[in-house]
Amino acid sequence: MRILVTNDDGISAPGLTVLAGILGTRHEVVVVAPDRERSAVSHAITLHVPLRVTRVDNGAGKMLAVSGTPADCVKLAITELLDQAPDLVVSGINPGPNVGVNLNYSGTVSAAREAAILGFAALAVSVSRHEALHYDTAARFALRAAEWIERERLPRGVFLNVNVPDVPEIEIRGVRYCRQGRASLEAGFHKRTDPRNQVYYWQASETQLFGDGPDEDGVALAEGMIAVTPVKCDMTDHEFLARMEKRGI
Amino acid sequence: MRILVTNDDGISAPGLTVLAGILGTRHEVVVVAPDRERSAVSHAITLHVPLRVTRVDNGAGKMLAVSGTPADCVKLAITELLDQAPDLVVSGINPGPNVGVNLNYSGTVSAAREAAILGFAALAVSVSRHEALHYDTAARFALRAAEWIERERLPRGVFLNVNVPDVPEIEIRGVRYCRQGRASLEAGFHKRTDPRNQVYYWQASETQLFGDGPDEDGVALAEGMIAVTPVKCDMTDHEFLARMEKRGI
Repeated sequence: MRILVTNDDGISAPGLTVLAGILGTRHEVVVVAPDRERSAVSHAITLHVPLRVTRVDNGAGKMLAVSGTPADCVKLAITELLDQAPDLVVSGINPGPNVGVNLNYSGTVSAAREAAILGFAALAVSVSRHEALHYDTAARFALRAAEWIERERLPRGVFLNVNVPDVPEIEIRGVRYCRQGRASLEAGFHKRTDPRNQVYYWQASETQLFGDGPDEDGVALAEGMIAVTPVKCDMTDHEFLARMEKRGI
Repeated sequence: MRILVTNDDGISAPGLTVLAGILGTRHEVVVVAPDRERSAVSHAITLHVPLRVTRVDNGAGKMLAVSGTPADCVKLAITELLDQAPDLVVSGINPGPNVGVNLNYSGTVSAAREAAILGFAALAVSVSRHEALHYDTAARFALRAAEWIERERLPRGVFLNVNVPDVPEIEIRGVRYCRQGRASLEAGFHKRTDPRNQVYYWQASETQLFGDGPDEDGVALAEGMIAVTPVKCDMTDHEFLARMEKRGI
């Protein structure tokens, strides 16, 4: 396959290097990633400033750094930068879980969503720990998932969100197919005063697990399982839509 | 009701002023909005810099400007800035439609989504034209939808996305309950050269309508109808999840 690899931690991030390296052992890999860390940018796109592209040469194949968001990288790569369309887009490896509510904030996940919107097969990969030690475990599972997608196909407008425990491969307890769980952020801020006596607020939220369903992504991950969640781009609540028809505004 | 009003075009945007004014005729309104335009920031949140809050006094009630994204505004308002929890969060009025794929990029929609994630009833409102002339039509429908939500209740984790034709109220053809349609952006960039002979790319996408289902948000809007779409926060493709169980990676 031709695989486009991107992320939200920037082109120098170790998770990207390990991912591109392991996918590259069996497939043709092109990296197009943000030129710096862009985590928590969600699905933002850049409208008001132009994007610059820089070729990065580390001897490991074609790598392009873009001065934009993960969604910008995918759009620009597919429409302008790549010679041929990719068979698959893989985003990651993100240090820290992308489960539950984090699917909204994550640039890693949004890159995969942008690819799915454009009609491409896509996969987002994260590991459970912010100070990740075992990107190789996640990268090897990403390779397996990529080849599964090649064989089995995803429905249009659907991509996979994969979270892998940050442990040696031997300690992985299995794979669980999960829904997006109820893991949510405690919406906490630190209120502080600056040296000029002005108040400021600093986002201090940590991911918190709520819910205990074994089919929730965060729960599976905490139990040492690889959590695989199919995510769809259609956000409509079709069930409530049918009810609205009958009790119109 | 106590209504928190926000947007992504910034606290000085005319759509916000008209919306807060009309909701304020029958309800208690507090405005907490970005201090400048933050459109297309999607569901980004601010982690790496602190947030500042400035009180804006235009004689029209409590207005607070926040140096962050729409999602930051909702989080910060609810957890730190408001004396009492709101009964409803209304985001808008956005000049330009938020239909189809734009639901991913829109800061207006993400503010409503953040409120729904935090467990609050929420509503995002947009008008069809970027050079909007008839915010009042949309604001009056927002008032009606707000009071409908108060009576009928939304399921937890669901909010309404409303798009209103930019016409005088008398010309509105009705209300249609819609799914998120297939309207997508043509992922086009202009490739140019700067005065120092360096290449840059500028996002040049325009919303394009694909699909012709009368139940699609963009189609209803183009036909002169108000399009109301219930949007859910759960992104799982439950149907494909069930299939994945049987043909595991």
